[in-house]
Amino acid sequence: MSHELPQAVTARKVAPLLSVATVQERILGFTVPMPTETVALTESLGRITAQSIRTCEPFPPFPASTMDGYAVRAQDGEGVFCIQGHALAGHPVAYTQSPRQVSYITTGAPLPEGANAVVRVEDTEPMGDQVRIRVGVETGDNVRQEGSDLASGQRLISAGVKIGPIALGLLATAGISQLEVHARPRIAVLSTGDEVCSPDQVPAYGQIRDSNSPTLTHMLTCMGAKVHGGDHIAHDTQGHLREAFEFALSTSDLVISTGGVSMGELDLLPALLKDMGAELHSERVNMKPGKPFVFATVDHDTGPKLLFALPGNPVSAVVTFYVFVALAVRRLQGLAECRWPTIGVMVPEPWQRDSMRPEFHRVSLVWDPELHAGVGGYRGLSTGSQASSRLLSMLDADALVEVSPGAERIELGTVLRALDLRQW
Amino acid sequence: MSHELPQAVTARKVAPLLSVATVQERILGFTVPMPTETVALTESLGRITAQSIRTCEPFPPFPASTMDGYAVRAQDGEGVFCIQGHALAGHPVAYTQSPRQVSYITTGAPLPEGANAVVRVEDTEPMGDQVRIRVGVETGDNVRQEGSDLASGQRLISAGVKIGPIALGLLATAGISQLEVHARPRIAVLSTGDEVCSPDQVPAYGQIRDSNSPTLTHMLTCMGAKVHGGDHIAHDTQGHLREAFEFALSTSDLVISTGGVSMGELDLLPALLKDMGAELHSERVNMKPGKPFVFATVDHDTGPKLLFALPGNPVSAVVTFYVFVALAVRRLQGLAECRWPTIGVMVPEPWQRDSMRPEFHRVSLVWDPELHAGVGGYRGLSTGSQASSRLLSMLDADALVEVSPGAERIELGTVLRALDLRQW
Repeated sequence: MSHELPQAVTARKVAPLLSVATVQERILGFTVPMPTETVALTESLGRITAQSIRTCEPFPPFPASTMDGYAVRAQDGEGVFCIQGHALAGHPVAYTQSPRQVSYITTGAPLPEGANAVVRVEDTEPMGDQVRIRVGVETGDNVRQEGSDLASGQRLISAGVKIGPIALGLLATAGISQLEVHARPRIAVLSTGDEVCSPDQVPAYGQIRDSNSPTLTHMLTCMGAKVHGGDHIAHDTQGHLREAFEFALSTSDLVISTGGVSMGELDLLPALLKDMGAELHSERVNMKPGKPFVFATVDHDTGPKLLFALPGNPVSAVVTFYVFVALAVRRLQGLAECRWPTIGVMVPEPWQRDSMRPEFHRVSLVWDPELHAGVGGYRGLSTGSQASSRLLSMLDADALVEVSPGAERIELGTVLRALDLRQW
Repeated sequence: MSHELPQAVTARKVAPLLSVATVQERILGFTVPMPTETVALTESLGRITAQSIRTCEPFPPFPASTMDGYAVRAQDGEGVFCIQGHALAGHPVAYTQSPRQVSYITTGAPLPEGANAVVRVEDTEPMGDQVRIRVGVETGDNVRQEGSDLASGQRLISAGVKIGPIALGLLATAGISQLEVHARPRIAVLSTGDEVCSPDQVPAYGQIRDSNSPTLTHMLTCMGAKVHGGDHIAHDTQGHLREAFEFALSTSDLVISTGGVSMGELDLLPALLKDMGAELHSERVNMKPGKPFVFATVDHDTGPKLLFALPGNPVSAVVTFYVFVALAVRRLQGLAECRWPTIGVMVPEPWQRDSMRPEFHRVSLVWDPELHAGVGGYRGLSTGSQASSRLLSMLDADALVEVSPGAERIELGTVLRALDLRQW
C-alpha cells in the first residue's frame, strides 16, 4: 500500500466562492433556447410555444343564444306572438324572422336574421303555435355577439409558455391544428463514484444504491425533457469518467453529473472537464447545502453544450438542481419565465443561521387562514433533519426557505422568502 | 315545420337545487378507489401508493465519512500520526486501524474498524507517510452513523400519495424495486351537441369547434388517468346518445359528457340516463358558473360506474370539472387527499356578488411581498370577462375565488378563500 497522497490532498487550489445570484446569472447568460419545430396541436401538451398565437376568425362565428327560449325583436315588447320556427343549436333557420313573430331557440343556436334578443323560456307561456312573452328585453339580451369571446386576430397564447389543457382546448376551438414550439432538450444524467451501485444491484460493503440518477431523471421527465437512458454509473478512473462524459456530451444538449469523484471531487472533475475543453463558469458557490457546484460550457463537435457537476450528497444534488439546473432546463425549453416563483413562509421553529453560508431550508407548506390577524399565510413545516445525505428531508419539501447567514437566531413567527417548488 | 313545442319546454320539471358541499359529499361517498396492482419502481412515476412503504435495512448501511480527511481515534488528539492506509469511497479497508495511527478517508467511505471520528483534510498537514492532525475532534465528528438517515423499518412513504421524483429516488436507494399502487382509472369523454364539430373539421354555419373534449381529455391526462380515445362527438338523437353512453360505460370506470343536448338539456339527458339504469344524485347545483350538473352512478354489467354530465359552456364544463369531477378522479386513483388546497386571495377589484348563487371567480395569482403590512399575500388578477362561454378566462386561472351570494359589493382589498388549482 503506497502512502503517497493524491495531488488533490497535497495541493488543493481553491476556486473563487461565487454567490448564488452570480451563478444563476451566468447560467442564464450562457443558455440559449432550443431551435423550434412544428407539432400537431394534438401532440402539443406540455410543449413550449415559440411564438405567440392569434385567432384567424371571430368566436363565436355568429350571434348565438345563451339561453333556451324565444328569439324576438326587442322593440316588439311583451304580448302573444306567432312562432315562426325552431332555431336549434346546430340547425340554424333559413328564414328571416318577420316583425312580431318569434322563433323558439336553444342555447348555442344562431339568432335568426331579423331577431335581436332572446327571452328566456322561463319568462314565456306556451299557447299552441303561439307563445306569450311575459317580459320585455333590450336589444342584445341573452345573445352572445359574433366575436364577443374572441375577436379575429386576438392573441390567444404568448410565446414562451407551456401548453396546458386549457390552452390546448382554446387552440382547438380556434381551429389551430399545428403550432411552432421549441424542440425538447436532450439531457444526460451521470452518477459517478465507486461507492454507488445501480438500484437493482445488491451493494457490496462500502457501497450504497444510487438515488441521484433516478431522482434527477424523473425530475427532468416531469419538466418535459428527454432524458438519456444508460446505467448512469461512471467509475472513478479518469478514463472511465472521460469516456462517460464524452458520450453524454455527444448525445445531449445538457449533461448533469453528480458527485463522487473520490480523492477530492473539488479538483479532479474540474481538471478533467478543462482537459476536455470545457470552460468553467462556477466551481464553488456560497450556499448550504451544495458548496461544490460546477457549471461549464463545452464547444463540442456536435454543438454547444451545457454541463453541470453537482455534489454527490442526494440533498445537495437536488437543491442545486432546483436552484441552478432547473433554470437552464427551462431556458433551453424556451420558457419565458425560468425562475421559481417566490412566496413568504413563516418559519416553523427558531432556526440557527449558518455563520457563513446562505442556507436553503426545506419545508412543506400549509396555508393557515388564521395567520397574520386573519389574512392568512403559509406556515412552513420542517421536513426534519436537514443533513445533506438525508433525501427523506426533500420528500415533502414544497419550498426552499432562504436563510441569510449571520450570528443571530431566527425567531419563530418570522416570515422569510422561499422558492415555491410545487409547480414544474 | 311543426310548431309543436318539445316536451322539455312545455313541462320542465325542476330537480332540487343542491349545494356544492352536498354534491361533493355525495360524489366522495359513492366513489371507491380502484383495485391495486404491482408495478416496477421504474414505472411508478405519478402512480398512487396503495400501502405505506417501509425500509428493510438501515441507511447508510455503515458508518461513513462525511468529509475528505483522516479517520482517527478521537481520544488520540492532535499530533503527528502514521498513515495506516487509504479508505476510499467504494473501496473499504480490510484492516482494523491501530491506536495512534490514522487512515486517509474520502467522503462516503466506511470508517475503518477502530476509528471513531474524521478530521477534515483542511485541518491537517501532510508529512510524507505521516500527517499532522492540527485539531482535536469528538467521537462521531464528521461521521454519518449507520441508519442515521433511515432506520431499518422506518416509514418512507404513506399510502395514498403520488410517487414523485424524490419518492422514486428514495425508494431506489432503499432497494425497493416494486410496489403496490392503485390501477389507473379509465375515463371516457363525450362532447354532445349537433352544434359542435370536431376541431379538425370546418364548422358549418351554426357550428363551433369542440373545445370540451380536448380540454377535459388533457386535464385527465395531466392527472394521470387513462383517457379513452374516439371522436367524442355524440349527436343529438336519443339513439346516438344512448349508444355513445353505453359504449363509454362498458369501457370505462368514469364517464364525462358535456352539454349540448338541445331542446332542454336539463331534462332530456337525465331522462335518458335514468332509462339506462343510472341513479341520479345531482341534477342542479347552486353555483355560478355551472348550475346544471349531473352526477350519477350506474350498476353496469361490467361493474359500478360513475357518470358526470357537465354543462356545455366551456367555462362551466371546466369549473364543474375542477369542483366536482377532479375529486372523484382522485378518489378513484386512491389519493388520500382529494380536495384542492385552499388559500386566501385579495380580490383585484370591487366585485358585484350574484344575488342568489355562490360564484367561482377565476383569477391568476401573484405573490405580493408588500401585502398586509409586509408579511405578503396573494393578489388575484382577474382573467377578464367571466362569461361562461369565454374559455380564455380559464387560460391563466390559477385559482377559483369563492364569492358567496348577497346584495353588497365586495370591496377591493378583501381577502377571500380560493381553490388553488396550480397542482394536479
